[in-house]
Amino acid sequence: MQLYFLPLACSLATRISLYEAGADATYVEVDPKTKLTRDGMDFREVNPLGLVPTIRTDEGDILTENAAILQHVAESFPKANLAPTDRKGRTQLQQWLCFIGTELHKALFNPLLDNRAPEGVRAYALEKGKSRLDHVEKHLTGREFLLDRFSVADAYLVTVLNWCVATPIDLDRWPALRAYVTRLSERPSVAKALAEERTLYMEELARHRASA
Amino acid sequence: MQLYFLPLACSLATRISLYEAGADATYVEVDPKTKLTRDGMDFREVNPLGLVPTIRTDEGDILTENAAILQHVAESFPKANLAPTDRKGRTQLQQWLCFIGTELHKALFNPLLDNRAPEGVRAYALEKGKSRLDHVEKHLTGREFLLDRFSVADAYLVTVLNWCVATPIDLDRWPALRAYVTRLSERPSVAKALAEERTLYMEELARHRASA
Repeated sequence: MQLYFLPLACSLATRISLYEAGADATYVEVDPKTKLTRDGMDFREVNPLGLVPTIRTDEGDILTENAAILQHVAESFPKANLAPTDRKGRTQLQQWLCFIGTELHKALFNPLLDNRAPEGVRAYALEKGKSRLDHVEKHLTGREFLLDRFSVADAYLVTVLNWCVATPIDLDRWPALRAYVTRLSERPSVAKALAEERTLYMEELARHRASA
Repeated sequence: MQLYFLPLACSLATRISLYEAGADATYVEVDPKTKLTRDGMDFREVNPLGLVPTIRTDEGDILTENAAILQHVAESFPKANLAPTDRKGRTQLQQWLCFIGTELHKALFNPLLDNRAPEGVRAYALEKGKSRLDHVEKHLTGREFLLDRFSVADAYLVTVLNWCVATPIDLDRWPALRAYVTRLSERPSVAKALAEERTLYMEELARHRASA
């Protein structure tokens, strides 16, 4: 399996999941500005929208969209138990993947993280997003994971909450979320993925500064 | 099964899917302002975020989030063939549900349809959204449905594209999307659901005017 990723973007959730599974995978870094891979290939030939995560399966299929990719990874490595296999559990997983993708990632964090977004866009997103963070705070109070055990939904949530540091969101207001991020960040798969992509992110910033 | 809905909101996709399946279901209308059902129950006791669609399954479970609900409905009525059952097909369905939910519904249409959104928010969403509509236009050119046959993803896409009339999006720029909406709107399940919810929507507007 091949994962096209941007350092610290939502594709980090797929990397975490692949690490959890001990999967044999290759990681292809894409530059967010040029959309070129590090060896100069135009990523838009793989995914015309230029969005990560994108994976190439071992069968050569191109898959896009976080929720679909994470469920595909979980299903590809069943021994890692990254997703429930009973019907009710699968539905709960899909609920969380959808909630994180729509209410947190797209509606709250994307505008906050987009430097080109007008200030009004950020204030609007922040105001609407607070009740969503409250919702997850309430769910995680007294729980270790979103479901009964670690799943790809946790890989996605910790990825998204990791972005708080680059936004005006202060997790002190949501203590269960803060504790969750701290706890999950110490998990070996998450710690390794975060450390590696933080380094790559700093290198990316340095390259952009050098070429500015 | 019980569906909590707002007229013409994204819960319409679930109604269409239930009609496709010939399902025995009840439909509970929620007022978008008061969050009360028509018989005066506080919907936030069912779903604290007040978001539709929300369903109560025959087992009494509450499910939220469109992608999860639509897959649950498809699985509940397998004879209706509303979702592929092979692995590759399921992944493709999840890709489209995720794309429609994040890139179209949340990132493009939600800001455009929110009367309280500042103008800058709408212009920003519109600019980012055009490439997403181009993407679906390209996919649907020469195709009848998103997948090989009608699926819950089509129920979701036609619901979302039906909102164009209330936005500055002119589908003349995307002829395959316009033809798709026209074609799907003539499908009996969609035609019935749209007609019923348009009536309920007009009644809702009239109630709001009367109580203003």
